[in-house]
Amino acid sequence: MKVSVLFSGGKDSSMAAILLEPFFEVELVTCNFSLLPTGEIAAEVASRLELPHRIFNMDSGILESAYEMIMRDGFPKNAINYIHQKAIESLALEDGMKFIADGTRRDDRVPVLTASQIQSIEDRFSVSYLCPLQGYGRNAVNQMVKNHLMIREALSDDISKADYEAELRELIKLRHGVDSIEKLFPPHVQSKVIERIK
Amino acid sequence: MKVSVLFSGGKDSSMAAILLEPFFEVELVTCNFSLLPTGEIAAEVASRLELPHRIFNMDSGILESAYEMIMRDGFPKNAINYIHQKAIESLALEDGMKFIADGTRRDDRVPVLTASQIQSIEDRFSVSYLCPLQGYGRNAVNQMVKNHLMIREALSDDISKADYEAELRELIKLRHGVDSIEKLFPPHVQSKVIERIK
Repeated sequence: MKVSVLFSGGKDSSMAAILLEPFFEVELVTCNFSLLPTGEIAAEVASRLELPHRIFNMDSGILESAYEMIMRDGFPKNAINYIHQKAIESLALEDGMKFIADGTRRDDRVPVLTASQIQSIEDRFSVSYLCPLQGYGRNAVNQMVKNHLMIREALSDDISKADYEAELRELIKLRHGVDSIEKLFPPHVQSKVIERIK
Repeated sequence: MKVSVLFSGGKDSSMAAILLEPFFEVELVTCNFSLLPTGEIAAEVASRLELPHRIFNMDSGILESAYEMIMRDGFPKNAINYIHQKAIESLALEDGMKFIADGTRRDDRVPVLTASQIQSIEDRFSVSYLCPLQGYGRNAVNQMVKNHLMIREALSDDISKADYEAELRELIKLRHGVDSIEKLFPPHVQSKVIERIK
């Protein structure tokens, strides 16, 4: 059974892939809107994890809609959730796609699909959506990460990561300047995987 | 890292243990109120899984309170949830207990702890509560079970299982006769593991 894991190069999507590895044929998939080389950043991390990786080119109209959302809302939650849902739906359209996974944890608030969004995706596309970390709280995830990954943590503007936020920030920077990013995205700690501990 | 998995001999708690096995030192734990030999039934299944198993004797006052709940409510949900919560709390009191897991799935309704019950248990007892199947829907769990377990499925009164329901049913049978069980417990399909596929 093959599973496609939405992959940002951070500790959560990496740990999700590691949890699936004994039970599925894992491929890491990084969504990209051709605005920043996030696919290459993620490919480098994937090689450290020794897991196959590919870049999935997404319709730039999705990023455009997300941009409109965040400018309207003044905060990123809905925009990030929208990109996440569209990423899963776009991937679900691929031939033979059966299992799509991500690194969502029990305590996550964004991006998170609701129960009815999950049901709708599974029914419409005949795929299973897996969140291997969903049943684990912060402490348990941290313990597992400590056993399996060497990570670097920094504030979100100091770390080059391949999540949805990166290209959304870039688009806003291009159109409104760097200062507007600070107003829209509260600073938060992000992680990047440096090495896998085997 | 050692994890204690609440174990009924059914497919969900078995699959949860199998998912944890590559990452934790797994022990299976079956709670028992000394009314039925559910511990022995579960021990037999555990030996098929080739995982260590022990019986955890629970205070019969817990079963008594659950009995009062189901007789008052007329349905088993609150009683089963109560036993489940008390099982986790009782186990959490053991020396050195750090990780407690169960076979709760994404689509389960009973027994399920609420987010605040989980937070409360983790904070009060300094344990992590893990639900490895929480991020998997029915179809994904069925696929994994098919790959790893041979199971037998039957209506709940035709299968000898080691879940909380078994002893609660027995207590009601002893006090009110076999007919009262049918009124309180809607018939539902239960599973028992026959063999592990390796």
